[in-house]
Amino acid sequence: MSYTVLKKHKSFGGATIFCEHHSESTKTKMNFSAFLPKNIEEVESAVIWLSGLTCNEENFITKAGVQAHLAGTNTMVICPDTSPRGQNIPGEDDSYDFGSGAGFYLNAKTEKYESSYQMYDYVVKDIVKLLKEDFGVKKISIFGHSMGGHGALVCGIKESDKFESVSAFSPIVNPVNCPWGQKAFKGYLGDDETKWKDYDATELTKSGKKAKSKILIDQGTADEFLEKELLTKKLEEVCGEGVADINYREGYDHSYYFISTFLKGHIEFHLSHLE
Amino acid sequence: MSYTVLKKHKSFGGATIFCEHHSESTKTKMNFSAFLPKNIEEVESAVIWLSGLTCNEENFITKAGVQAHLAGTNTMVICPDTSPRGQNIPGEDDSYDFGSGAGFYLNAKTEKYESSYQMYDYVVKDIVKLLKEDFGVKKISIFGHSMGGHGALVCGIKESDKFESVSAFSPIVNPVNCPWGQKAFKGYLGDDETKWKDYDATELTKSGKKAKSKILIDQGTADEFLEKELLTKKLEEVCGEGVADINYREGYDHSYYFISTFLKGHIEFHLSHLE
Repeated sequence: MSYTVLKKHKSFGGATIFCEHHSESTKTKMNFSAFLPKNIEEVESAVIWLSGLTCNEENFITKAGVQAHLAGTNTMVICPDTSPRGQNIPGEDDSYDFGSGAGFYLNAKTEKYESSYQMYDYVVKDIVKLLKEDFGVKKISIFGHSMGGHGALVCGIKESDKFESVSAFSPIVNPVNCPWGQKAFKGYLGDDETKWKDYDATELTKSGKKAKSKILIDQGTADEFLEKELLTKKLEEVCGEGVADINYREGYDHSYYFISTFLKGHIEFHLSHLE
Repeated sequence: MSYTVLKKHKSFGGATIFCEHHSESTKTKMNFSAFLPKNIEEVESAVIWLSGLTCNEENFITKAGVQAHLAGTNTMVICPDTSPRGQNIPGEDDSYDFGSGAGFYLNAKTEKYESSYQMYDYVVKDIVKLLKEDFGVKKISIFGHSMGGHGALVCGIKESDKFESVSAFSPIVNPVNCPWGQKAFKGYLGDDETKWKDYDATELTKSGKKAKSKILIDQGTADEFLEKELLTKKLEEVCGEGVADINYREGYDHSYYFISTFLKGHIEFHLSHLE
């Protein structure tokens, strides 16, 4: 077993666990949480949840109510932390939207961050390997929120052989054109903006790349970040027939109260591709 | 309106709100959260949730998944904070199990705490009044966890005219006989132990007092506080026919993962008395 269980809580007939393991991609210890609805031998598939800025492996598993929706199925959920931690890189802990808690699910190329901030590989290689080898999972889907929605879209579009289905809540769909994305991509990828497009869901879609199946997106209309950071319409404009279902939810904001309201639909969507 | 809404999040077709108001009993500002499944004009009944040690008005409303179970009903939930805050009483913030975050839902009699730590009256008078006058609620039930389970049992047993139904997760059922209760009762009520019995569910039951309807209790068998602090068997021993259903849940601990697993049953129980 390549991971250590730090805490285990019986939940909905299964178990919510908090773990640590070594990542070959980040070359650091990384934390994750998971919910296993049954004994590990009975688990057949998994959904990877990617969290947003300032989050860690705890937010989704404690606040979204996901256990209720996966109870009794053969599908687990795994929630990785959002960045390496404690690398003592100058400035790493200074901003809520860059460095620790803000890995942006990309492979950093700049000098300070290259050695450990390899979050794209961490998800698509290390977490996928962990799920297959240690949890015996056969099929995997991916979803996330905000920065993690961006991560899920980018991973799902670029690695369509690895992920059965992709969904997102309030994703940053066009990071090359918003302040959060520009700050992160400049800091992690450097000044050459042509390299940024490789981690932008709208740009990838424009170039003809597609996830394995039709993407599901939920977006609140009262989301305080919609106009400046998320830019949902930019993706909508380049999506052809069959690429994505984007649901605008009247009056909902950017919080976990929004996520928990529409989570059941996302879980049913992924289960339809996994079970 | 006697309260101020500080934050409001649309949730499950209704709203999760965070509020503050002035309490006549504690003579302080107090915080509470609530979930209203519909417009306030349509709300007819309420369940009061009392949280445990170290908690505030946020824990239950963010972690339990209660909104999913009340969605579409005419019943709201309200979650008061667990004590007054910031009273500058020497020692008030020194312990996790006494003072702020640990009001124990009693009316303090000791010199230092008497002026503000009147949490029993805060719940049975101020919160009840707020629900009736500001939310238009007609029927009220009460439940809670650990210290809040103790609070719900004591309020429900002593004020059987006010609360339609009473339930608890992992309650401290016999505080006069456990370290948490003894520390709190000595600090808030003083050295005369005969006065303590008035806030002890087992002692109240032994004396013949009863809630309006049969109490529901869920208790995890892997709860780390079961043997030393919660003492569930003590209440079980004095409960006659029809007083309480106590369910022991194999392998479950003291956490919100346990609460969220069995919450649906408690909500259905209260709705059967309220709607």
